[in-house]
Amino acid sequence: MRVGLLTGGGDVPGLNAAIRAVVKRGVGEHGHHIVGFRNGWKGVAEGDIQPLTRADIRNVLPIGGTLLGTARFHPHAVEGGMDAVMSTIENEHIDALICIGGDGTLHAASKVAEAGVKVVAIPKTIDNDVWATESSIGFDTAVTIATEAIDRIHTTAESHNRVMIVEVMGRTAGWIAATAGIAGGAEIVLAPERPFDIDQVVRFLKHRHRAHASFSIVVVAEGATPAEGTSMDYEMQVGQFGQIVAGGISDRLKHEIEQRTGFDTRVTVLGHIQRGGTPTAADRILGSRFGVAAIDAVTRGEDRVMTAVQDGEVVLVPLAEVAGRVKHVPDSLLDVARALA
Amino acid sequence: MRVGLLTGGGDVPGLNAAIRAVVKRGVGEHGHHIVGFRNGWKGVAEGDIQPLTRADIRNVLPIGGTLLGTARFHPHAVEGGMDAVMSTIENEHIDALICIGGDGTLHAASKVAEAGVKVVAIPKTIDNDVWATESSIGFDTAVTIATEAIDRIHTTAESHNRVMIVEVMGRTAGWIAATAGIAGGAEIVLAPERPFDIDQVVRFLKHRHRAHASFSIVVVAEGATPAEGTSMDYEMQVGQFGQIVAGGISDRLKHEIEQRTGFDTRVTVLGHIQRGGTPTAADRILGSRFGVAAIDAVTRGEDRVMTAVQDGEVVLVPLAEVAGRVKHVPDSLLDVARALA
Amino acid sequence: MRVGLLTGGGDVPGLNAAIRAVVKRGVGEHGHHIVGFRNGWKGVAEGDIQPLTRADIRNVLPIGGTLLGTARFHPHAVEGGMDAVMSTIENEHIDALICIGGDGTLHAASKVAEAGVKVVAIPKTIDNDVWATESSIGFDTAVTIATEAIDRIHTTAESHNRVMIVEVMGRTAGWIAATAGIAGGAEIVLAPERPFDIDQVVRFLKHRHRAHASFSIVVVAEGATPAEGTSMDYEMQVGQFGQIVAGGISDRLKHEIEQRTGFDTRVTVLGHIQRGGTPTAADRILGSRFGVAAIDAVTRGEDRVMTAVQDGEVVLVPLAEVAGRVKHVPDSLLDVARALA
Amino acid sequence: MRVGLLTGGGDVPGLNAAIRAVVKRGVGEHGHHIVGFRNGWKGVAEGDIQPLTRADIRNVLPIGGTLLGTARFHPHAVEGGMDAVMSTIENEHIDALICIGGDGTLHAASKVAEAGVKVVAIPKTIDNDVWATESSIGFDTAVTIATEAIDRIHTTAESHNRVMIVEVMGRTAGWIAATAGIAGGAEIVLAPERPFDIDQVVRFLKHRHRAHASFSIVVVAEGATPAEGTSMDYEMQVGQFGQIVAGGISDRLKHEIEQRTGFDTRVTVLGHIQRGGTPTAADRILGSRFGVAAIDAVTRGEDRVMTAVQDGEVVLVPLAEVAGRVKHVPDSLLDVARALA
Repeated sequence: MRVGLLTGGGDVPGLNAAIRAVVKRGVGEHGHHIVGFRNGWKGVAEGDIQPLTRADIRNVLPIGGTLLGTARFHPHAVEGGMDAVMSTIENEHIDALICIGGDGTLHAASKVAEAGVKVVAIPKTIDNDVWATESSIGFDTAVTIATEAIDRIHTTAESHNRVMIVEVMGRTAGWIAATAGIAGGAEIVLAPERPFDIDQVVRFLKHRHRAHASFSIVVVAEGATPAEGTSMDYEMQVGQFGQIVAGGISDRLKHEIEQRTGFDTRVTVLGHIQRGGTPTAADRILGSRFGVAAIDAVTRGEDRVMTAVQDGEVVLVPLAEVAGRVKHVPDSLLDVARALA
Repeated sequence: MRVGLLTGGGDVPGLNAAIRAVVKRGVGEHGHHIVGFRNGWKGVAEGDIQPLTRADIRNVLPIGGTLLGTARFHPHAVEGGMDAVMSTIENEHIDALICIGGDGTLHAASKVAEAGVKVVAIPKTIDNDVWATESSIGFDTAVTIATEAIDRIHTTAESHNRVMIVEVMGRTAGWIAATAGIAGGAEIVLAPERPFDIDQVVRFLKHRHRAHASFSIVVVAEGATPAEGTSMDYEMQVGQFGQIVAGGISDRLKHEIEQRTGFDTRVTVLGHIQRGGTPTAADRILGSRFGVAAIDAVTRGEDRVMTAVQDGEVVLVPLAEVAGRVKHVPDSLLDVARALA
Repeated sequence: MRVGLLTGGGDVPGLNAAIRAVVKRGVGEHGHHIVGFRNGWKGVAEGDIQPLTRADIRNVLPIGGTLLGTARFHPHAVEGGMDAVMSTIENEHIDALICIGGDGTLHAASKVAEAGVKVVAIPKTIDNDVWATESSIGFDTAVTIATEAIDRIHTTAESHNRVMIVEVMGRTAGWIAATAGIAGGAEIVLAPERPFDIDQVVRFLKHRHRAHASFSIVVVAEGATPAEGTSMDYEMQVGQFGQIVAGGISDRLKHEIEQRTGFDTRVTVLGHIQRGGTPTAADRILGSRFGVAAIDAVTRGEDRVMTAVQDGEVVLVPLAEVAGRVKHVPDSLLDVARALA
Repeated sequence: MRVGLLTGGGDVPGLNAAIRAVVKRGVGEHGHHIVGFRNGWKGVAEGDIQPLTRADIRNVLPIGGTLLGTARFHPHAVEGGMDAVMSTIENEHIDALICIGGDGTLHAASKVAEAGVKVVAIPKTIDNDVWATESSIGFDTAVTIATEAIDRIHTTAESHNRVMIVEVMGRTAGWIAATAGIAGGAEIVLAPERPFDIDQVVRFLKHRHRAHASFSIVVVAEGATPAEGTSMDYEMQVGQFGQIVAGGISDRLKHEIEQRTGFDTRVTVLGHIQRGGTPTAADRILGSRFGVAAIDAVTRGEDRVMTAVQDGEVVLVPLAEVAGRVKHVPDSLLDVARALA
């Protein structure tokens, strides 16, 4: 068989473990040819290929990023995109495609599958919000990095009445905020799942600092929002590349907290450091298991499925079941975060 | 309520997260008194108590070990042990006991429960072999440390025809060997679940080194054993404290490999570094979740249950179901380790 | 002897190693009483003392921050400050004072010495700009953290024509920028020692991205400034606590680079994570050596001296020689940073 | 110019930083051709070359080991070795040679220089015992790893009357033992510079455990030896590859301590993990500075010199001054280690 392989979306640590597993198992055990595509779906559309042999995947386990490159490119959203993809699949005699990615990549995979290509997907996202799987590649590393940062901030001078805001990734789901908040011992965790009441935040901080503590850590997901009806003055400004230039949620929080409490409030936005560097052992193991499961599934002729962790085991779930759904942080976990504040 | 709390057995990173969660939630939410016992069951037998308030658990999240101390002491195995335990429970007016520990501690917990004490258990073991739970406190940190060590050994001079043996913990189950072996990219993983054939190991190494590679890493669990009928000359010697003085499994492997292949073979026994130091984010989260679940269970009047992770959620399982059973590494995981060799 | 001990200014990892060394050596070897003052000079002024015994310094080596607390308080700049300090010195029968701090603390130490108190100082600053010593406590840890962050950013998707700005500490000296820039392999390093020409920065980036590279990392010290005569539009805004709210040097750089090149430019401000967490081995060793040297100096009756590293050895230098001078990054080091771009 | 480059001896983290600097600066600034030799002097003797361009050194900064490979091969100690080396130098038109290595490599460099080849050396050794330089590549990383290991061992159950021996590298000089011992807070540090009296060690341990402590850490350099006239029964056994099979210094210590005190004593031999993995920031900076200094020296026509750190600056010292001398740990540092026990 000739099996295509691509990594799409933002990159995360652990992708190389999955690539390595697909190649080692695919070539070594099944005797397939593994055809890598550079820069995600873009490489498929442009026929930008990189044959993958066992020599190409030596020593990549501890390396972050993806040796195939990645891009945010959705063939179905670009004129002629799907035709270009199908033509490469045909020209390269690709029997099946393994797509490693998050939301966008999985959506594209569904579209390509509908067009007749056999597809097996592997979920990756530091946001951990892919449906039907307990974990996705990259999440454990992101939580580890965020926790280390909170630890460091914890030991800095516990100055009187200071509030430290740590902003972590998570646009629609607050997995990193909730877990790193628990692991780092944050006093307040703000996740998109529970729009927050700024009055309550301010009241908590005042109460806490009055009682005894001189120092509070607030961990906030980038996608956390104030509850409807509550007012926060400060407005967000978006730059030319779509990124927030000023007035991100942390800046707005800082503004309100300082205005209302008079406490010196500092913001640390972890940003890109959450998605780079050496993957944790857990992400390497997950990537490796997913890679083996995906190439085995391809070999058995499975189609339109995604590898997933359920009850601690690696299983396959229908891609259709996953598409368009977001796995939110359960109340039980948010409650633990609040209980330990 | 007056709730007793102890940590037993060998210590592991993440215990303090569980203690902290029991205290924060127990005192702050439920208004209980938390009575800590020093050095596990020994402290219960001797009435060696340490009241735990919120002040006692500040800043303990990133600290390894256990602030309560621990000991390998089994009240039911010591003359008068059970009586001493029951008398402390009575004198201290303990309404229920939260026991954090592995095999031995859980077994003692069952015995004490039979004697009429309400008991809720929390599983910890770097070996990850407690039945009925996907993970136990300490395992993730141990795998992380072992993986880092294998990484380091990987980058050392890839000298010609050298074999590096890395011995990790795991007496009856090979969880660390299998997972760290995968994460570190080991060529051979030897776990207690699959007694190994030394002839096969030697043949694999000769073949590999003849083909191209100049360097092989063998990860072996301390409890791995040669298959019956296969011969390994070198004998094990046990010291006065029960520890292996010479001729542990690594030494025996080294001896055989050098004899039969002539390859320079080096042994690194990770030993105690696997069970100390800062817990990973995952172990802190697990400890925190288990702690909250345990004190909530106690408050609801639950008895003879253990906190566990199933399908990604924290649940309670009957202690009776757990006792005397070992959770072995499943074939699926050992197969991934072998597939990626 | 009764020896006072304080830590002043912003806290850094490694302070506890110095405190521990002063206490272990001072109590154990010399038989002194060590009188800790809480929160730097503020504690001296207010008579806020904390006697330090060997029990107090157990297990503090790996802990960031300072067990004595710290504050930015300058007795000579506050009305009645010096009198309050002198009165505490007298009331507590302090024979000599060991002051651990940066610029401000050392300056205050000079003032107090002039008033007749025997003073021995230990330099700490993550900026590494204390005169007469090769290194100060906290610098190595800060460089290590900044390098890890740059590493992580390096492995994220090497998107086309993206510029990543990493802002590190360093108001008047660019030690962290230069060293972490070298260690992390930055393409451009901007330090206060060499005001930069934004035209040149832009030209370099355009040239580099045109040639081949798709990705550039710019490491900038918070105190880097554009050269006179060069224009940068964007203005800085300062908040009520003196911190930069918007328009820090990174924001200004980002603005200019995006305007002139059209390259997507992202900013990561490391901020407080640089000054917290477990100290590196080097900072613990430095703190330990300085602590022993300081208490030995006090015992010998030395006065108005500072511990320093010169030619790899710990020596004492006159405090007068240090005051008011800034140790800038030498050209040789900035040249290495540029040579490896 | 055509400049040869090799790395010899055991590998250490930071070598790639030096290689990268030589290539970036040599090719980019000076326009030289850099000719890499594989596996140290062996590659020179065998004409095994690997041309090095800027593409070859991308992303190597955080990678341990050496991209050129290394070997313990001494041309002057092998029949025909020197002739083979000279013939390669001639055939490849090598104008000068940059040799990165420790003791053995530097010695070979002297021999080759005597035969008429221009040579500039860069010192690397985790033992830190190269004369005339404050530090050598690899030392800081080794100390960091050893300190982390001691930290981990520190937090494991502080069982009653247990002694933990941690064996670190250092055959003739005890730099790692002394510095990691200080950084990790060891109770006893045994270095080759001060042959130890086992009676005194035993007395100290007994006294300490009697007083209060239940737990002691002994850090011992592999080359530490008992003082003359003191007796230790247990004998060392050496294997066929020259390595110690049993009865290394740790085993001997363990044996004596257990015999004489009855304390449970455990040994952890760090071994190869000390010389692998990601280099610390300090080692990358040192490698980078040495690399730039070496290629600049070659360009200026310098000969028979070694890069060195003196008074915090990178300088050149005559190779002749270095050869055959060992830089031992100064008393001042060993005294700090003892003072803080």
